[in-house]
Amino acid sequence: MQTGNIEMRVHLVYAHPEPKSFCAAMKDTTVACLAEARHQVTVSDLYAERFNPVASSADFAMRRDASYLSYALEQRYAVEQDAIAPDVAREVERALAADILILVFPVFWFSLPAILKGWIDRVLSGLFYGGRRFYGRGPMAGRRAIIIASMGARSHMFGTGAIRGEIEPMFRHLSRGTLGYVGYTVVEPFWAFHVPYITDEARNLELVRLREHLARLNSLASPCIPDLDDYDRECRPIFATPRYERRL
Amino acid sequence: MQTGNIEMRVHLVYAHPEPKSFCAAMKDTTVACLAEARHQVTVSDLYAERFNPVASSADFAMRRDASYLSYALEQRYAVEQDAIAPDVAREVERALAADILILVFPVFWFSLPAILKGWIDRVLSGLFYGGRRFYGRGPMAGRRAIIIASMGARSHMFGTGAIRGEIEPMFRHLSRGTLGYVGYTVVEPFWAFHVPYITDEARNLELVRLREHLARLNSLASPCIPDLDDYDRECRPIFATPRYERRL
Repeated sequence: MQTGNIEMRVHLVYAHPEPKSFCAAMKDTTVACLAEARHQVTVSDLYAERFNPVASSADFAMRRDASYLSYALEQRYAVEQDAIAPDVAREVERALAADILILVFPVFWFSLPAILKGWIDRVLSGLFYGGRRFYGRGPMAGRRAIIIASMGARSHMFGTGAIRGEIEPMFRHLSRGTLGYVGYTVVEPFWAFHVPYITDEARNLELVRLREHLARLNSLASPCIPDLDDYDRECRPIFATPRYERRL
Repeated sequence: MQTGNIEMRVHLVYAHPEPKSFCAAMKDTTVACLAEARHQVTVSDLYAERFNPVASSADFAMRRDASYLSYALEQRYAVEQDAIAPDVAREVERALAADILILVFPVFWFSLPAILKGWIDRVLSGLFYGGRRFYGRGPMAGRRAIIIASMGARSHMFGTGAIRGEIEPMFRHLSRGTLGYVGYTVVEPFWAFHVPYITDEARNLELVRLREHLARLNSLASPCIPDLDDYDRECRPIFATPRYERRL
């Protein structure tokens, strides 16, 4: 991974129920690339660690308001009080320490497996947004996030008029709505298509393509995230056509 | 709920970590509407039942291939062999028995709380799609699904040029990519906006609006789902512009 000569801190969150999966190979390839570039990497293997994906009051040993659960507010308070669930505390710390967040997963229903959705729900909570702290003013601004995912669909199934439509809006809830929302510059995702049906040779070529993708990390374009300067205090657009739409 | 004079079977899946939430009130209002119309309703309260959202090999007491987990294939096999996890078996049965599926949830990151995503991952698996069994040829074809959800955002934050962009693509992974994929006619969702910040009076008005929404269930338009007749065996479009795009 060429990210200049600077050694970066990377947190990779991986979720696949089958240790022999192609997703596991993508995770291993990514970790190898990072090690070759001497980056510092932490890996959370959610299935292996039996990560609890359910955001609930059980995550807080101390409550700001014990009579009504506002999860994001309680997360902020519990982190201050050092009263947050240990697994969440560890993941918050890793996410805050990392310059780059990498998610490696199989696409389940055009989204994340529930165990990884639960990582988002429990970790990227109150500390990671609030008020006008989002998009370019989010706490993760200046850092990068990458999606590396496998799916059964073929690439020709995506696009205008294709059977599954455009791929970008299908995953917009994750790229712009989640990662971009907390401030990350969201790098062009790496999609491995048709994975359950291709040969080992084709899979190896996909791993080569993954290495190439990671090497271009600095130059890969990120999707459009609105600029908060284009919106008033109530988040109403100031311009008839906000600048991010003009860039589309 | 006016759905003609026919009594329908409805399965409502509800997920909120706070029993006093507005989402709970939306669930109760929906159940009351259904009861008034004498529909048969089953309710799964995922938090109360401590539903396990993690799709894994532990869901199958018997395996088609114990050396490599293909979740969807194992689900089909395990249901045949009566070897599926009891909670999944129950939910599969309820989903297959219902004419209408209703999901009631708070929006977490423009998507489902992980516990409800796990319901999708574990329940709507191999039995619910495969080969050309999707969209209008999916096993749920002829049935309806409705999203009823609360969120913090205000309605003016959605739309062309709005700070969060168009609402339809943000939730397309769920409406078209999940519910529409298995065959449901996806009814126009009910969104309750700005919920954490509005008065009790405004919340009561939202519940009135919910009752009105449910009463119009038969006439509410569904989003565009591609017609499989517009695609060849490899799912490549036959026409330059598939008919569903022309209807947009």
